Amino acid sequence: MEIIKPRTLSGFMELLPEKQLRFEKMAQVLRDTYAAYGFTPLDTPAIEDARILLAKGGGETEKQIYRFQKGDSDLALRFDLTVPLAKYVALHYNDLAFPFRRFQISKVYRGERAQRGRFRAFYQADIDIIGDGKLDILNEAEIPAIIYKVFRGFGLTRFQIRVNNRKVLTGFYSMLGLGEKSGDLMRAVDKLDKIGAEKVRLLLTEDCGLTGAQADDVLRFIGIRGTNAQVLAALEGYAGRDPLFDQGLSELKAVTANLAAFGVPEENFALDLTIARGLDYYTGTVYETMLLDHPQIGSVCSGGRYDNLAGYYIDKALPGVGISIGLTRLFYVLDEQGLLNPALPAAPLDALVLPMTGDPAPAIALAEALRSGGLRVQLYGEQKKFKQKLAYADKLGVPFAVLLGEDEIAQGLCSVKNMGTGQQVTLPPMEAAEYIRQNLPGGDVPLILE
Amino acid sequence: MEIIKPRTLSGFMELLPEKQLRFEKMAQVLRDTYAAYGFTPLDTPAIEDARILLAKGGGETEKQIYRFQKGDSDLALRFDLTVPLAKYVALHYNDLAFPFRRFQISKVYRGERAQRGRFRAFYQADIDIIGDGKLDILNEAEIPAIIYKVFRGFGLTRFQIRVNNRKVLTGFYSMLGLGEKSGDLMRAVDKLDKIGAEKVRLLLTEDCGLTGAQADDVLRFIGIRGTNAQVLAALEGYAGRDPLFDQGLSELKAVTANLAAFGVPEENFALDLTIARGLDYYTGTVYETMLLDHPQIGSVCSGGRYDNLAGYYIDKALPGVGISIGLTRLFYVLDEQGLLNPALPAAPLDALVLPMTGDPAPAIALAEALRSGGLRVQLYGEQKKFKQKLAYADKLGVPFAVLLGEDEIAQGLCSVKNMGTGQQVTLPPMEAAEYIRQNLPGGDVPLILE
Repeated sequence: MEIIKPRTLSGFMELLPEKQLRFEKMAQVLRDTYAAYGFTPLDTPAIEDARILLAKGGGETEKQIYRFQKGDSDLALRFDLTVPLAKYVALHYNDLAFPFRRFQISKVYRGERAQRGRFRAFYQADIDIIGDGKLDILNEAEIPAIIYKVFRGFGLTRFQIRVNNRKVLTGFYSMLGLGEKSGDLMRAVDKLDKIGAEKVRLLLTEDCGLTGAQADDVLRFIGIRGTNAQVLAALEGYAGRDPLFDQGLSELKAVTANLAAFGVPEENFALDLTIARGLDYYTGTVYETMLLDHPQIGSVCSGGRYDNLAGYYIDKALPGVGISIGLTRLFYVLDEQGLLNPALPAAPLDALVLPMTGDPAPAIALAEALRSGGLRVQLYGEQKKFKQKLAYADKLGVPFAVLLGEDEIAQGLCSVKNMGTGQQVTLPPMEAAEYIRQNLPGGDVPLILE
Repeated sequence: MEIIKPRTLSGFMELLPEKQLRFEKMAQVLRDTYAAYGFTPLDTPAIEDARILLAKGGGETEKQIYRFQKGDSDLALRFDLTVPLAKYVALHYNDLAFPFRRFQISKVYRGERAQRGRFRAFYQADIDIIGDGKLDILNEAEIPAIIYKVFRGFGLTRFQIRVNNRKVLTGFYSMLGLGEKSGDLMRAVDKLDKIGAEKVRLLLTEDCGLTGAQADDVLRFIGIRGTNAQVLAALEGYAGRDPLFDQGLSELKAVTANLAAFGVPEENFALDLTIARGLDYYTGTVYETMLLDHPQIGSVCSGGRYDNLAGYYIDKALPGVGISIGLTRLFYVLDEQGLLNPALPAAPLDALVLPMTGDPAPAIALAEALRSGGLRVQLYGEQKKFKQKLAYADKLGVPFAVLLGEDEIAQGLCSVKNMGTGQQVTLPPMEAAEYIRQNLPGGDVPLILE
């Protein structure tokens, strides 16, 4: 038979079992946390009508999207989970209860130029809350509070959710008479972290056409620093001059107060006036999330408030707030930086049952008994030497081997060998299950190191 | 803004939240059961190099596959999970421990003609065990034993896993001097259930060119019925005439004995000589699974033993055994037949917290306390009338509303309203969490009705 060399396309993550199990554990933290807040899981198709996905159209999306014909159909793969959500909500509007709270953890597809660490298929883990006509400001604190729980669930403490409000920014620019330029100004200011104040000043004066005085006003404003109370106090100094600014400030105060009520410590969230988010559909609160000891990674979780989710598909005002974690990229950079905790057990089983006699029936019954005790158990049925069986257990990183020879069978016992310490005890099956459960490594080990 | 009518492509399942939650519960039974047997989760890409997916080529696959160009790349969407597994095992051969046990629950894509109940994207839930060179017969009993656990996990008892062995069939046809026709004969005989014995006899004589006597021999053989012991006894009557038949019979005996050891009751598995499975890569034990009260659905879970998983990609003998559930189709037919248990709770939350005062902080704290008690809780923050809040809870099917007014806040209590009975009790938050947990409906309710 002619052999075709196997390969996985570049830009597509395919993990070995040990890594995949770590990835699954991160996904499980996301699912459990989202579910604890009453979000419902959705699973929209990966393939949609291309005209629907491209309703908004424009720029990078058109270039990157995987689009193809099948028969007469003009098809495309989703490039995010927000457009399919908009379609879903518009299509099923009459069947949904609003506020509609959904999470979706699914792959999206973007045919980007191949680069190390850039993926063409990657998981997004999104939560959104969609209102019908209105949506209370309380939701704008709940979303980052949930993200706080997710990152704590990963075992992290050194992270910060940075919060701003687009109304505060737009209102401030209006005060300066620069309301029409606010989009360009936000994009320039967004670069502060990357290029520094001096270069931003150049962008503001040369590219955006501000006077030197206006540029200084802008830089002074986005330079506001301090505790959240200090930032809010400084913003009060601008109050009363623009209604949109005042509304944004009041929202920012509400979000700050409510985040504290959700139990998010001040060290894990910060008001940050430099954050604007590139996407122009955000209209209120916006978020970014930084790993404090790894700022070079950039934001690992971003989102915000928008006023009109599904205007392309339905003539209804559907405001919402949402946030997205690029899970594949996050996993990749954590792995690359050596931050995935090696102490986290990543074997697919808790115990490997090794039959030492010819008849498999007693070993089958033992394995079933251990499973009924809540363990993940593999029965090793291959005809191999004992040494090879133990080598298999070692290669998988199995914490316990359970040996069943004639003596054990005669006495209704089994021998439990701790593969880490080499220690061996002989016990009845249900006590063996309990013993293994008690001694399994790493129940509380954090997924990620700091 | 111009409105584009939202739609989901035909042949692509997109569920409303209540149905999606039921689907997730079925998927969870699969994941938990597969994990309990030490299978490792895999997640191979949906997009692969088209030449790799089509290495085997031929027939329906070529027609149905979604294949497209992006830049210079010839890409395709996977049409099953077996070919990607073969690629994975060949590519990562040196990094895997054999026997390699993996499960994958992922969507596959087939551009079939649109028909009611036919899907173009559907979940397959596959388990496979791959050996390096050899694989013990024990695995051929373990696979259906796991499927037995899955269907019991769904709440079913009225199902039957039907088991046969291709070596028994091929060996039998060799005895009749029909070895070279065994493929055609198996395909004809496979239709027995659908078209009856008389028409199969016609196929055998007219299409396959058998003599009347040969056709009668075949029909007598596949007509063997009875308990598993009776079927094995009848097969003994053919023993000693063909070495392949004898090997198959010995395998069938081992599988039968081991299935009993795994605790699978005789009523849930049956030796059935009519089963051959269409695919020509099966070489030993083969399986189908029927819902006994719904035979018109056909097999809901099929698979078998093969000798060479990855011959297109690697020059190694990699025998395996696997089985696949077409989860999307199974879910669709169960739903269509009204077999999804309506008593199964399908709300995305256990309790909806309704603040009755202006300051949200006490309600936020209460919701967090209930979550820390293990409940899925939504805080309802919208400014609506009380009646509308309760209507929202009803629409979602929430079992408990938790009311927090000034009196409750003053006393450190909350009022728990059972939305089913209307009954209301006032308790401190942690006791409320315990009360709700104790009274949640349907913990042990089967997912599927019989």
